[in-house]
Amino acid sequence: MSQLRGSCIIGQSGGPTAVINASAQGVIQTALKAECITRVLGAAHGIKGVLEDKLYDMGQEDPAELDLLQYTPSSALGSCRYKLADPEVDDTDYKRILEIFQKYDVRYFFYNGGNDSMDTCNKISKYMQKVGYDCRIMGVPKTIDNDLFGTDHCPGYASAAKYIATSCMEVWQDAHVYDTGMVTIIEIMGRHAGWLAGAAALATWAGYGPDLVYLPEVDFDMDRFLADVKDIYDRTGKCMVAVSEGIHYADGTFVSEAKTSATDGFGHAQLGGLAVMLADIVKQRTGAKVRGIELSLLQRCGAHLASQTDISEAYLAGQTAVEAAVDGTTDKMVAFQCSREGGYICTPKLIGLTEVANVEKKVPREWINAAGNGVEQPFIDYALPLIQGEPDLPREHSLPRFAKLKKVLAAQG
Amino acid sequence: MSQLRGSCIIGQSGGPTAVINASAQGVIQTALKAECITRVLGAAHGIKGVLEDKLYDMGQEDPAELDLLQYTPSSALGSCRYKLADPEVDDTDYKRILEIFQKYDVRYFFYNGGNDSMDTCNKISKYMQKVGYDCRIMGVPKTIDNDLFGTDHCPGYASAAKYIATSCMEVWQDAHVYDTGMVTIIEIMGRHAGWLAGAAALATWAGYGPDLVYLPEVDFDMDRFLADVKDIYDRTGKCMVAVSEGIHYADGTFVSEAKTSATDGFGHAQLGGLAVMLADIVKQRTGAKVRGIELSLLQRCGAHLASQTDISEAYLAGQTAVEAAVDGTTDKMVAFQCSREGGYICTPKLIGLTEVANVEKKVPREWINAAGNGVEQPFIDYALPLIQGEPDLPREHSLPRFAKLKKVLAAQG
Repeated sequence: MSQLRGSCIIGQSGGPTAVINASAQGVIQTALKAECITRVLGAAHGIKGVLEDKLYDMGQEDPAELDLLQYTPSSALGSCRYKLADPEVDDTDYKRILEIFQKYDVRYFFYNGGNDSMDTCNKISKYMQKVGYDCRIMGVPKTIDNDLFGTDHCPGYASAAKYIATSCMEVWQDAHVYDTGMVTIIEIMGRHAGWLAGAAALATWAGYGPDLVYLPEVDFDMDRFLADVKDIYDRTGKCMVAVSEGIHYADGTFVSEAKTSATDGFGHAQLGGLAVMLADIVKQRTGAKVRGIELSLLQRCGAHLASQTDISEAYLAGQTAVEAAVDGTTDKMVAFQCSREGGYICTPKLIGLTEVANVEKKVPREWINAAGNGVEQPFIDYALPLIQGEPDLPREHSLPRFAKLKKVLAAQG
Repeated sequence: MSQLRGSCIIGQSGGPTAVINASAQGVIQTALKAECITRVLGAAHGIKGVLEDKLYDMGQEDPAELDLLQYTPSSALGSCRYKLADPEVDDTDYKRILEIFQKYDVRYFFYNGGNDSMDTCNKISKYMQKVGYDCRIMGVPKTIDNDLFGTDHCPGYASAAKYIATSCMEVWQDAHVYDTGMVTIIEIMGRHAGWLAGAAALATWAGYGPDLVYLPEVDFDMDRFLADVKDIYDRTGKCMVAVSEGIHYADGTFVSEAKTSATDGFGHAQLGGLAVMLADIVKQRTGAKVRGIELSLLQRCGAHLASQTDISEAYLAGQTAVEAAVDGTTDKMVAFQCSREGGYICTPKLIGLTEVANVEKKVPREWINAAGNGVEQPFIDYALPLIQGEPDLPREHSLPRFAKLKKVLAAQG
């Protein structure tokens, strides 16, 4: 394959994770060392930074600060939720992207994100092919939701899973401290797939965690939920429940959005989250003392509980993307192929962007128990290796020391 | 002082913390080594375990498991919120406690808790003095609220403060990732004192934290709050706010309990917490995208972010209580005297239970800024030394390994 010389762009997109910056670090540090890559540009707020001609010159960053990216949560370059139009309908954005690529002689484009970002990446890739602009375009996976198709798992998932499992174990201790009754409901992210909610079961596996786990892969039934809770509460005086924010009724209505008038007598829109709403319903039906806890943003930015496996793999994903592109690959996303027999082994592979864009990977139904209120051992076997390892977190005064980037705007190349 | 032989009871009471078990460990391990203490009994659920004759024989526990108590959040022996009656009005409970003390030949009583627990401890101490039962009674301080009188700080506070500061730093990263506006409101525990909410300012001091911090020591004014937020949001496009759950209007009404009809047009009781309510009001007034986050139980059980200083001091408090009691002291609580000039030094001291019971220590007004929306440097200088040091947390499969107690009920002594 012919060597392609030019600059590269790395962009981050979608909801941040604890390790998305480890992938950015993998891309940036590998690209800075690649002879054929003349300049490494970081897009401010993903594709918006390209459209707005706001690109940082990553070569001007202090290498020691770049090393800290792997321990810095959220997207250091800034993120966006910008959906590119269908180029057949409106190609304005694509023309602008091409213009910027030409302006900076961009020949490598790395886009770090989840489903929507892979859609963006795929569209740009196909457009550049169509107009005959020679550019290698690679997706670097990231999502706490773990719902990207074609990969064993996604960077970002494991650290969120570890945060969820650890927090559930700690909350379990707290929720069992009094000899009075208590129902605790923990709300976990994951709008369409239950990978994160399922991770709460790691806590139960380890000794202290939710009695019941509800994933969006199974239709939610309020009466059955209340019966499940009541059964455990009546027997033990406690009940701990983990619910995905994405649980929905059989007709597809999200439980969090449904008017609860039918079940709890209220007719107004709920201001609190799902956990608080379910806790309130449980309280009315059982009289139990309840507490609803929403893990909220904490679960996706909790770098202090990151999995070292996740950090290393996130870096590897970025590194692999650059190495593959330099070797001539384009139009692919880095994915992972993993073996768990006789020790966990994770190997990067490449998958076509068209295959991965906009396809959601859900938890297999057979990994969820028949009652739809817990996960089976294969789920544990799947997730447990991913959360292993504690990073040696850099700290100052016992508080996190995050990467400080200068973000110097790049001059025209 | 004459040597007093007999068994001892350790009880835990009130809301749990990340390090209350470190204090229990300090008591238990020191008592197990004390020659004059014939048996170490753990009360199940605090004073309720005494009243119900439910005492565990701590000598039967595996020493390796007792060593893990310092890393195990929540109250391992169980807790209670049981208020003893005024003995002048109703001495039933006191007679029962005396009966149990006699039954097990209890000559040492250690009670580990906050304000209410010190009241319990004080009442039992005075009753035993009155009836002439020779027993040494010591309070071991604990409260994330840090509002106990007569001590520089309380075990439990620092670990919660570290959890709050670290989480705020991480959420800050997440809340600043998009180039669109965002107001984030974080609700922190502390019903009457702002020590915990103030800890959010450690994040700001370290580089990334709330722009505004509201403590219950200053009356809350909704219009001023909205003006504060709007000012920062208009200038920067973001605003991060930390609020104590205990903020209240000038008339004493908690903001969380006030009907918000006057301010937001809703007339119904809020189901969500304070953060969600304030976020909703901000959204209506400014149109900003908002997010309300309640740190909830996580902040008080987050042992994975405990301060080693806190763990060591919590242990020291328990150890000191036993050593002082064995040496003849009674009717005291262990407190800390600290120096921060030229390095942090913490020395235990003893303070009369009568002095400490039911007195709340608040954040000095001069440590809060004039506008009442932040803390001053003296607060930082006070809190920062307390959160230092990372414990070497025991883990199994990269998840916490908490102490497993056998909890064997004690036979009559």
